[in-house]
Amino acid sequence: MKLYGYFRSSTTYRLRIALELKGIDYEYIPVNLLTSEQKGEAFTSRNPFGSVPMLEADGCDRAQSMAQIEWLDEAYPENSLLPADLEDRYTARELAYAIATETHAVNNLPVLKYLKDPLGHSQEEIDIWYRHWLARTFAPLEARLAQLGTGDFLFDRPGFFEVVLLPQFYNAERFQFDCSDKPHIARIAQACLALPEFQRAHPDNQPDNPEMSS
Amino acid sequence: MKLYGYFRSSTTYRLRIALELKGIDYEYIPVNLLTSEQKGEAFTSRNPFGSVPMLEADGCDRAQSMAQIEWLDEAYPENSLLPADLEDRYTARELAYAIATETHAVNNLPVLKYLKDPLGHSQEEIDIWYRHWLARTFAPLEARLAQLGTGDFLFDRPGFFEVVLLPQFYNAERFQFDCSDKPHIARIAQACLALPEFQRAHPDNQPDNPEMSS
Repeated sequence: MKLYGYFRSSTTYRLRIALELKGIDYEYIPVNLLTSEQKGEAFTSRNPFGSVPMLEADGCDRAQSMAQIEWLDEAYPENSLLPADLEDRYTARELAYAIATETHAVNNLPVLKYLKDPLGHSQEEIDIWYRHWLARTFAPLEARLAQLGTGDFLFDRPGFFEVVLLPQFYNAERFQFDCSDKPHIARIAQACLALPEFQRAHPDNQPDNPEMSS
Repeated sequence: MKLYGYFRSSTTYRLRIALELKGIDYEYIPVNLLTSEQKGEAFTSRNPFGSVPMLEADGCDRAQSMAQIEWLDEAYPENSLLPADLEDRYTARELAYAIATETHAVNNLPVLKYLKDPLGHSQEEIDIWYRHWLARTFAPLEARLAQLGTGDFLFDRPGFFEVVLLPQFYNAERFQFDCSDKPHIARIAQACLALPEFQRAHPDNQPDNPEMSS
């Protein structure tokens, strides 16, 4: 498999975690979002959405991270990301899709760029926007996790939910969003970050991160 | 089952279509978004996300429309929304999640409200924002549908993709977004709108629509 992505892209980070947790070998091919490489003809002829991640797998160029993850878990059942129990599957998806739609989608790079130009907002206003949508989902997420009485992970080991949570936790730190009053979220994130799969998937450890220690 | 929703909410509309296509009887309970009923204690004690739709089903209060739809299709396999073939399932999800994350999430009511207050944008600027995110996803969506050579529906009958497309097609009409150069999208939408399941699910035919003909 080949994963086309960008080190700091939250959705690429999701795929790196998913592939690591499933134990699937893949080749990582950086796409430079800063030069809009994903909007060039060479890329959009394969992925009309012009977005990363693109997963080249089993003869197809696949777009859309959540569809990629659902597909991976069906096509490669070993080390499943979704639990077997129907209600647990629902719970994992409820929390993951809350982050994917209500936080990530609204804070995605094209949206932030539009706020700057044409809408003319300052970086400070954009940072406030960013933290607003983090707060709006992380508060009910924390409430749900408290109701569920979770331990180090949502279930017995990290899976579908943690794949989506960790990139958003990384963003929260980048945007100085305080998670100290979110003990369940913070505990799950720290437990994940201690695992080699999450360390290998981390943006700090990607070849296209200019600050990567060589 | 009980579906708590609002007639014009795109995500509630998704659930109405899904339940209709699956042939599942349900009670529709209007929640008045205009008076922020979904943010009241009576509602958030059951759904901490404070959002519609909420689906009361099999003893649980379920939030997040895409998780609800995935759950419905697993818990009630009859009249499945997702096709059986692995690649077709991927395709349906790719197109549906593109709309759910890149169009719907960014054009959702809380986002439009934030653009108005505190950001101070005019209705005209908000309408341009709305059409921008429709255009940005509908163009590659049309390209994918052309590649796939679709007929009246993505596959042999309406399912997962059409559940998410039709509410967005309704929004496109409301916001004067022209779909005449999107023949595949327009054809699929018209074929769906001719079916009684989609007519019963339509916002025009809900009891909380003030313009409903009695």
